[in-house]
Amino acid sequence: MKINGTPYRSVWRDAQDPNLVHIFDQTKLPWTLDILGLRDEAQVAHAIRTMQVRGAPLIGAVAAYGLAFALRKDASDPGLTESAAMLVETRPTAINLRWAIERMVAHLRPLAPEMRVEAAYREADAICDEDVQVNESIGRHGLALLRELWEKRRPGQERLNILTHCNAGWIATVDWGTALAPIYMAHDSGLPVHVWVDETRPRNQGALLTAWELGAHGVPHTLVADNAGGHLMQHGDVDLVIVGTDRVTRQGDVANKIGTYLKALAAQDNDVPFWVALPSSTIDWRVTDGVQEIPIEERAGDEVTHVHGLDDQGQATRLRVTPHATQAANPAFDVTPARLVSGLITERGCCAANAGSLSALFPDLAD
Amino acid sequence: MKINGTPYRSVWRDAQDPNLVHIFDQTKLPWTLDILGLRDEAQVAHAIRTMQVRGAPLIGAVAAYGLAFALRKDASDPGLTESAAMLVETRPTAINLRWAIERMVAHLRPLAPEMRVEAAYREADAICDEDVQVNESIGRHGLALLRELWEKRRPGQERLNILTHCNAGWIATVDWGTALAPIYMAHDSGLPVHVWVDETRPRNQGALLTAWELGAHGVPHTLVADNAGGHLMQHGDVDLVIVGTDRVTRQGDVANKIGTYLKALAAQDNDVPFWVALPSSTIDWRVTDGVQEIPIEERAGDEVTHVHGLDDQGQATRLRVTPHATQAANPAFDVTPARLVSGLITERGCCAANAGSLSALFPDLAD
Repeated sequence: MKINGTPYRSVWRDAQDPNLVHIFDQTKLPWTLDILGLRDEAQVAHAIRTMQVRGAPLIGAVAAYGLAFALRKDASDPGLTESAAMLVETRPTAINLRWAIERMVAHLRPLAPEMRVEAAYREADAICDEDVQVNESIGRHGLALLRELWEKRRPGQERLNILTHCNAGWIATVDWGTALAPIYMAHDSGLPVHVWVDETRPRNQGALLTAWELGAHGVPHTLVADNAGGHLMQHGDVDLVIVGTDRVTRQGDVANKIGTYLKALAAQDNDVPFWVALPSSTIDWRVTDGVQEIPIEERAGDEVTHVHGLDDQGQATRLRVTPHATQAANPAFDVTPARLVSGLITERGCCAANAGSLSALFPDLAD
Repeated sequence: MKINGTPYRSVWRDAQDPNLVHIFDQTKLPWTLDILGLRDEAQVAHAIRTMQVRGAPLIGAVAAYGLAFALRKDASDPGLTESAAMLVETRPTAINLRWAIERMVAHLRPLAPEMRVEAAYREADAICDEDVQVNESIGRHGLALLRELWEKRRPGQERLNILTHCNAGWIATVDWGTALAPIYMAHDSGLPVHVWVDETRPRNQGALLTAWELGAHGVPHTLVADNAGGHLMQHGDVDLVIVGTDRVTRQGDVANKIGTYLKALAAQDNDVPFWVALPSSTIDWRVTDGVQEIPIEERAGDEVTHVHGLDDQGQATRLRVTPHATQAANPAFDVTPARLVSGLITERGCCAANAGSLSALFPDLAD
């Protein structure tokens, strides 16, 4: 997508130096467009852990390059195993990370060690290119859904109101985004969409990234506190919720940014459709019950007790927003049970959130 | 309650000057204990509008003194009517404000104008003293509920986990608080309570006021993002939700700080009791359907786009937490339908959230 008219992806290889990969430091957005160069797997691991790159699909893509970097130092079987394990452990909840690394390892292990570095770069490039295509497909399938809702609009309704939580936009993927791909396409095709952007405490990915992305592309949107969504739905101001996800189980349970479950409950209580957009790489076929089985990352409490922003002088800084003695807990994700999910938007089309529909749509993956 | 060992109320008359009333500037808490003197009705209206005083019961008490101040300038019938109307309009959602002003007017209108100022001060004093007694009763009734839950604890359970939203503590009332009164009493009586404090965006009353209050009294607590409550309930980490309220309808619908409804939905989905603590002055007997009838205050968007806190040098300041172009909507309250409320804790005891139970408990008020 474009930033001030210039098209970007959220990860790309340097035009001159084949061993250099660029990302935006997403912890600095939207204040600073800071492009970081990554050259080794430690830098990649650091970028993932500190959320310089975040978003389940993007984490997978960047980790794939991390494995290529690691193989430059040690392309042996044990080296491959060890680097893969190190990268998989950088974050626990998003499954695309494991998917990407397992895909890389499956592709590379049969090769002679001296062939592996080049093959790793090619496979990482392929993961990136496929991510873009997959998200474009998600966008097209989601767009059909939005058009259908718009055709059923109330008399006098002037815009289609979509609520989203966290950031599942182009900056969370290689391009297009998952939840936002249909929205970009709807906007570009003249459908009058308006997005309620949950600020998404504690890290404010909605306020910082989604609002920035949508604003840069010209999509009408309004920021709201995470607390507001239920009230908006009670008053008919939300036609649809679309979110991304970090892991979907084989029965359709959805792990996503903390607070998603609360919006799904409100959607159900107010008959608002609640859709989840995802590439099939986000499905964890080994896991059934999301609430019981998906590990939920517990992040540092200072993400809750401190807030980042711009001061009156335009300097990026942070503030403590609690008394000094206050301790905070910070679970980063929650799980929305499949019973609350209206459906899943995948690169192969939409399907119900249950084991039968998922395995019918992905018989080649379901095992 | 006490601040660093010294007992305070959240509003009190000056010991020397009968025409001076003191409050804490709650927009400065917890960073600065800034005591403001109020001497006229314009100062009172400003303090309510800007949330220097907030919390439904406290707003009512302070507004009562505001009426006394206004009568010093004009104690005529038209003056009484006009000042009462001005004060009632300072905030739209909390009903205690209207209750307090109507009580004042009903008491004062029969009196000769020259008697009204002194009578107004006495009645405002009585409203304050009664608020303290009422909250103490709420605390006792709620304490019985907590004891009952603690007796039914799981084997090995080490603490009773209570989640609260916003601030319904002593600083939101004249003393004791509503939702926090039972918690203070439980803690003081040796029940091992632990409070999950919702930060309560956008104004962070949980992070700023509830965490401060509980910390000052020594009650164990942990701050969480508003998004976290559903996840905590899914995993058995919440035994009970208690919140305050700004207005309860005759059928038991509950208006409270934005986001309360989402917690009520999560409580229902996880079989967690969801209780609401209130003085009977919070019941609006003229209103039945809360979602349709209660006016919801829409506050300025910059409460969402900007955050207050302490910088690294310990200076109170604010940050912009969104891109400059981002607009925000800021509904300040939502309504939790009675069907999601396990029960109401009032000064006369607990009752179910429905018209029959409410009018049985308050036959003298129900019409």
